[in-house]
Amino acid sequence: MSPEIEPLAIVREKLDQAVDVLQEKDVDLWITFARETAQVRDPCIFLLLGFDVTWQSALLVSKSGERIAIVGRYDAENVRNINGYQQVIGYDQSIREPLLEQINRLNPRSIALNYSQNDPSADGLTHGMFRLLANILGGTEYATRFVSAEDVIAALRGRKTHAEVNRIRAAIGATEGILREVEALVKPGMVEREIAQFVHRTVDERGLGVAWEESLCPLVVAGPDGTFGHRIPGDFVTQLGALLQIDFGVEREGFVADLQRTMYFCLPGEKEPPEEVQKGWAVARAALEAGRAALKPGARGWEVDAVARQTIVDAGYPEYMHAFGHHIGRNAHDGSTVLGPKWERYGNSIEGVIEEGNVFAIELGLYVDGYGYLGCEEDVLVTANGAEYLSEVQEDIWLINCD
Amino acid sequence: MSPEIEPLAIVREKLDQAVDVLQEKDVDLWITFARETAQVRDPCIFLLLGFDVTWQSALLVSKSGERIAIVGRYDAENVRNINGYQQVIGYDQSIREPLLEQINRLNPRSIALNYSQNDPSADGLTHGMFRLLANILGGTEYATRFVSAEDVIAALRGRKTHAEVNRIRAAIGATEGILREVEALVKPGMVEREIAQFVHRTVDERGLGVAWEESLCPLVVAGPDGTFGHRIPGDFVTQLGALLQIDFGVEREGFVADLQRTMYFCLPGEKEPPEEVQKGWAVARAALEAGRAALKPGARGWEVDAVARQTIVDAGYPEYMHAFGHHIGRNAHDGSTVLGPKWERYGNSIEGVIEEGNVFAIELGLYVDGYGYLGCEEDVLVTANGAEYLSEVQEDIWLINCD
Repeated sequence: MSPEIEPLAIVREKLDQAVDVLQEKDVDLWITFARETAQVRDPCIFLLLGFDVTWQSALLVSKSGERIAIVGRYDAENVRNINGYQQVIGYDQSIREPLLEQINRLNPRSIALNYSQNDPSADGLTHGMFRLLANILGGTEYATRFVSAEDVIAALRGRKTHAEVNRIRAAIGATEGILREVEALVKPGMVEREIAQFVHRTVDERGLGVAWEESLCPLVVAGPDGTFGHRIPGDFVTQLGALLQIDFGVEREGFVADLQRTMYFCLPGEKEPPEEVQKGWAVARAALEAGRAALKPGARGWEVDAVARQTIVDAGYPEYMHAFGHHIGRNAHDGSTVLGPKWERYGNSIEGVIEEGNVFAIELGLYVDGYGYLGCEEDVLVTANGAEYLSEVQEDIWLINCD
Repeated sequence: MSPEIEPLAIVREKLDQAVDVLQEKDVDLWITFARETAQVRDPCIFLLLGFDVTWQSALLVSKSGERIAIVGRYDAENVRNINGYQQVIGYDQSIREPLLEQINRLNPRSIALNYSQNDPSADGLTHGMFRLLANILGGTEYATRFVSAEDVIAALRGRKTHAEVNRIRAAIGATEGILREVEALVKPGMVEREIAQFVHRTVDERGLGVAWEESLCPLVVAGPDGTFGHRIPGDFVTQLGALLQIDFGVEREGFVADLQRTMYFCLPGEKEPPEEVQKGWAVARAALEAGRAALKPGARGWEVDAVARQTIVDAGYPEYMHAFGHHIGRNAHDGSTVLGPKWERYGNSIEGVIEEGNVFAIELGLYVDGYGYLGCEEDVLVTANGAEYLSEVQEDIWLINCD
């Protein structure tokens, strides 16, 4: 499998899938309108092209099956090499005329654009580019036919193809390998920062990337005083008789994993974590399992979250202050339906319906007073029968220095 | 110099500079409104924070000197560590109330937002987030007070601080080192792809990044049949009696370089390139110099381009089909004023005025029939007296295999 050919095959696969989605959602035309994507990248650019463009570029997919790319002259050859667009139009001075010509010819009743209040993956159109497009179509009836592409994009990104699931599996495997090495490496007295540095070195040596911003990937929470959050690993110390939690994923060939692992450093003579820690772990695991069991085609995002959240609360622990789950794929937060509570910041992303082929990271955690933070996170594939683990599930806390 | 402290110092420096710019441009309040920036990153996020945020986040800078960050609870600690915001407000469920409260308190007559039809660096606000903000401010007078922040951002990004220029110098030095190694390495019969792979390996070994998308960085044009453009290096072969051109820059500690170098492979017995090649090179160099001489504080972007372009055309060569120059800094196309012709796709970016402290890559090239493409590109700093080269200028074509 050549790494230079294979991504183009996935792009062609997604382009074919996009036509099916437009038919299903009854949208006549979908336009991805972007420029200088190395600087501000509409997530749909990698879905529909696989590389960046420089000048103003329009990728048109129609319900009737047409795929048309209008790009700057210097980008045109790369787009032709995809073999996924029937027409590739390279321009020199202005995108206006070729774009107007194609839209006039297609005469769409609805034009889906990449904006969404709820889904960052479907919100790659910048406001300036929206204004530019409205200006280009100004005075035509088409400027009144814009709709959000959020449903189209959620379906297209969310329904992973076989090749995409394989890529995610490979990223999960690489992540698990590194987490096991962390387990073998950690010693009492290490600070969070050292652990993160070890992970970064290992990622570099293997030619991998990290799944989210490097300074926050991994997240490491050491000891009873370490706070959980999007916090740069710092000076908190791993301690005997305390927990260590790590949240991490690699990016491998454009796809990512997202996992958490929890470890406990035994006190001299201890064989296993104390009862409070074990109880907390059992509750967290039970809540994760309950959520996974609810994660089936047809369920809504908030319904899945509610099952896991209620399990935690019923056991007497405070609810986790984040969502239970999120899509993963090309990104650690891969947009579309969020398995989250009905909080304003999640908008209607939690109303989405789970579909076969979705891949989620599911996660939760809790503090055990005096011991620190414990967290569970696994990656799952939704099948017709429910959510199957793609990761090797952490059933028990990993024990360090125990008798 | 600790790599973990220094970036925060630059963020604080830019925050101070931002207040000056708001006073100069008479803008009451500037809001950067973003979320999940690992996925779609407003370029102002790295300017004003230096790391990604996850939930909806608002960075407020007021003409009166206030800097307020409203971010999700898990991001708040990282923002506090910058020591550049007087107020850091971490929220759990919704940004609406704290954002409304701050805007009501500041009562701005104008609110600059990050949208621009012309400048991608100033166009990081997505259309969905714009709609969300309009919704939050709906029913208040503030929703009618939005203006584009493009002038603010162009000034702030464009006026490099001393620390920023030093970072760019370091990236230029690292790029020049790798280009000299390419010169030492290349042999007749190598294909473009091999040269790009050598560059990527070297970049990785040194812990550097590339200045733009990896598959297109470097760009390599080998032999008489290689075409110039944003083309993935392919199977074109370096040949005796032909040119090799490479366009490349590294990213080092968040700042980039952008340079082109041209080489010629002598035929057996040749001591230097043939007359046509030398003449083309002399014209290209003269045009680059003419453009550099015109690149002074107060000049407009299109004026600088016109001087270089006319030099090429007067010498009987076809004009280059791109802009003469672009800002570099945190990005290889760093937004703000473009030194380009009055073509529609450049919008009004070419009307901008050159300022002291701007750093530009200036470039042009031409084909010599039967020999291939030659290109010059250097990086310059604009001072009160004109543009000073930051790079070690390529005065002559580099000779490979010559007697």
